[in-house]
Amino acid sequence: MAREIGIGMIGCGVVGQGALRLIRDNARSIEARLGGRLVVRRIAARDAAKERDPVVPRELLTFDPQQVLDDPSVDVVVEVVGGLEPAGQYVRQALERGKNVVTANKMLLAEHGHALIELAESRGVDLYFEAAVAGGIPIIRVLREALASDRILGLRGIVNGTSNYILSRMHDEGIGFDEALAAAQAAGYAEADPTLDVGGGDAAHKLTILATLAYGARIAPAQIPTEGITEIDAVDIEFARRFGYVVKLLAIARSLDAPREGGNEAELGPLDLRVHPALVRERSVLASISGALNAVYVQGEALGPCLLSGLGAGSMPTAVSVVSDLVDVGRNVFAGSRGRVPSRAFRGEHLVVRKVRDMGEHIGRYYLRFAVLDRPGVLARIAGVLGAFDVSIEQMVQQARSASAEEPVSVVMLTHAALERDVQSALREIGSLQHVVARTRMIRIEDV
Amino acid sequence: MAREIGIGMIGCGVVGQGALRLIRDNARSIEARLGGRLVVRRIAARDAAKERDPVVPRELLTFDPQQVLDDPSVDVVVEVVGGLEPAGQYVRQALERGKNVVTANKMLLAEHGHALIELAESRGVDLYFEAAVAGGIPIIRVLREALASDRILGLRGIVNGTSNYILSRMHDEGIGFDEALAAAQAAGYAEADPTLDVGGGDAAHKLTILATLAYGARIAPAQIPTEGITEIDAVDIEFARRFGYVVKLLAIARSLDAPREGGNEAELGPLDLRVHPALVRERSVLASISGALNAVYVQGEALGPCLLSGLGAGSMPTAVSVVSDLVDVGRNVFAGSRGRVPSRAFRGEHLVVRKVRDMGEHIGRYYLRFAVLDRPGVLARIAGVLGAFDVSIEQMVQQARSASAEEPVSVVMLTHAALERDVQSALREIGSLQHVVARTRMIRIEDV
Repeated sequence: MAREIGIGMIGCGVVGQGALRLIRDNARSIEARLGGRLVVRRIAARDAAKERDPVVPRELLTFDPQQVLDDPSVDVVVEVVGGLEPAGQYVRQALERGKNVVTANKMLLAEHGHALIELAESRGVDLYFEAAVAGGIPIIRVLREALASDRILGLRGIVNGTSNYILSRMHDEGIGFDEALAAAQAAGYAEADPTLDVGGGDAAHKLTILATLAYGARIAPAQIPTEGITEIDAVDIEFARRFGYVVKLLAIARSLDAPREGGNEAELGPLDLRVHPALVRERSVLASISGALNAVYVQGEALGPCLLSGLGAGSMPTAVSVVSDLVDVGRNVFAGSRGRVPSRAFRGEHLVVRKVRDMGEHIGRYYLRFAVLDRPGVLARIAGVLGAFDVSIEQMVQQARSASAEEPVSVVMLTHAALERDVQSALREIGSLQHVVARTRMIRIEDV
Repeated sequence: MAREIGIGMIGCGVVGQGALRLIRDNARSIEARLGGRLVVRRIAARDAAKERDPVVPRELLTFDPQQVLDDPSVDVVVEVVGGLEPAGQYVRQALERGKNVVTANKMLLAEHGHALIELAESRGVDLYFEAAVAGGIPIIRVLREALASDRILGLRGIVNGTSNYILSRMHDEGIGFDEALAAAQAAGYAEADPTLDVGGGDAAHKLTILATLAYGARIAPAQIPTEGITEIDAVDIEFARRFGYVVKLLAIARSLDAPREGGNEAELGPLDLRVHPALVRERSVLASISGALNAVYVQGEALGPCLLSGLGAGSMPTAVSVVSDLVDVGRNVFAGSRGRVPSRAFRGEHLVVRKVRDMGEHIGRYYLRFAVLDRPGVLARIAGVLGAFDVSIEQMVQQARSASAEEPVSVVMLTHAALERDVQSALREIGSLQHVVARTRMIRIEDV
């Protein structure tokens, strides 16, 4: 008789249904790879009345998650409920009962991942989460296994498909944020409440996970300076284009270590972690990642640059990661090798606490858009304040004069590299200048 | 006392030295990931007199590979000799003695991989080879593990860095093949005998490995229709550019299955496997992979398109794959889980023999460059022959008239989709036409 891995699923939305479809449609090839079958034993859904894809076997449905957690024939619980609670409680209960867990829940992992992973380790079970970051792109496996021999200098990713879709629409069609958001919602790329996506929170959750794996560090999402795309205007996209740039929401992690000497391990410095919109050169690889695509660009000390890109969301790409995790857990069950690869890439006793650099310490170039009344001397005063704070101007563009002297015009400056604390101080002072009529918009430039 | 994995290395060239460097420089983080140490016990080099990187510990050097194979403290043999023999004999001996093997030897794997893997499986040891394809890009792991849940519709890759470097130089500088090859040799990107690289043989070896993993099929390199880049002229690159294309050496695998109905497994058709130069659109992702970079673009049925790109060769990127394999083998040794993932992605008893489609059956668009004397009627006769074989012309460009009526001019045609057998028949007939003075150059167009 073929060996079996019993699967219980909690949640039965688009990702769950996608996973059920793969388990059914690819049963033969999964068995040829795994040497055993993935058998779905029970599925807990929230809403009994809902119409469901015929791929969901009705006889396995329950509306009580406890029935999944209590089922002794379930070896692995797939949590695709999302959100902190009650998802967290289901995961904890599953682990406590000695069941392996596969989850796509980035929020839960970012906020409570360390406690959950330590619980899994203490019970000798696996907690896998490839689907939590960048959908079908296997960035978790790559960081955890393929790069186990290398030192990761940094990574930068486009990991929120909703924001990238909105920015791409704004870029391609010249429309504003609100219109692009509405289009994203109509196309199913944005939720009714898009705050987590467009506010950068979702990308910060994913960066928390990636940075933990890359650096073996205990990171919390609250440590990550995070800005979303809600303040990007159509005019910013247009000015960026004139300077040869595209605006992207980036998640960035870098280790600011002292240079290594000889064969010494480098002395660990703080981590540079941040999520914010950025101007990237229109000929760069990340600029070409458009629509709902995701991409992660990893820089290894020995590997050099390596790019992974693909669909970052959607039922089937995300389900690929969920079911590949199930195969992996299944291999561990059959081989008796649970815990073979640490969930956080590094073994718990080796995890470190790393300082996260304050954004004030960031050194980079900046895009600054001032809204001013067209009066003699106003530009000179702005330039004077910037100069006083050591912020030097590389390029400037002033919008055509407005019809009325009372209507503000946009002045855009790109700076040379400057210390962010100085830029912020200058912008505060500029905000109180006469004839500067609105808050200055600042977007960081990422040239690399 | 920390657990140890004993390593013996046979071959000590650039990849071997890179691996020794990583094992030394990243010892602490490797231990934090693996839960044990990688300890190099013995290194067999060929040449006693050679100057070596100080990373090679002199006291471990031997010039007799048998000393590595006989050492009972060696758990894993790293084979970085390259070529079929004696490398194959070392690998066989290591496996027969119950030692795991990590190798970067694509030729050996392509030609004798099935026998070696079956030997490893029969002895309960692991044979890992991430470094054999695309250097530091973890395409083997991705096909074997990350996509274990999906059905791979196709893949296309730039997997020979030497050819890509030469084509990039030809494209960027307008130089000819010979000059670009000399530049590649001077830059260390091409060997003294570049036949295997520029003739397409190396890419065919890599495609053999990738197709085996993607389709669970027993493929031999001799089954793969293979053309190299030696016949690409500067003028072809220039004409391609005028039509909006870039010339790349591609390795392509597709499964020509019947469409799947409902949840049924698709009925397996033949495999479309080939290595040849191709015109790709200049705005496509593969066109942007320049210089010594490699890239593999995988199309999963559920995953959709996924791109991996990075450095495909070089000491350190390749060493990353070798040492990450060592970590993986080490995890298996510690967990007692050798053979946990089948080396060929599918378990031996599930491997199938697949027919490889004859190139004559290929349907695609073609770039055709005719060398003709500038005489009335010659174009009409060429067009007539093409038409008689159902090859229809989409665009045509004729070079400016030559100074002398006896000097041939180039006429380039891009065809609509046509059957390759028909194109070949037409070209044979055209070759015997009056005023057609040289063999017609044909390059396939890959629009996708």
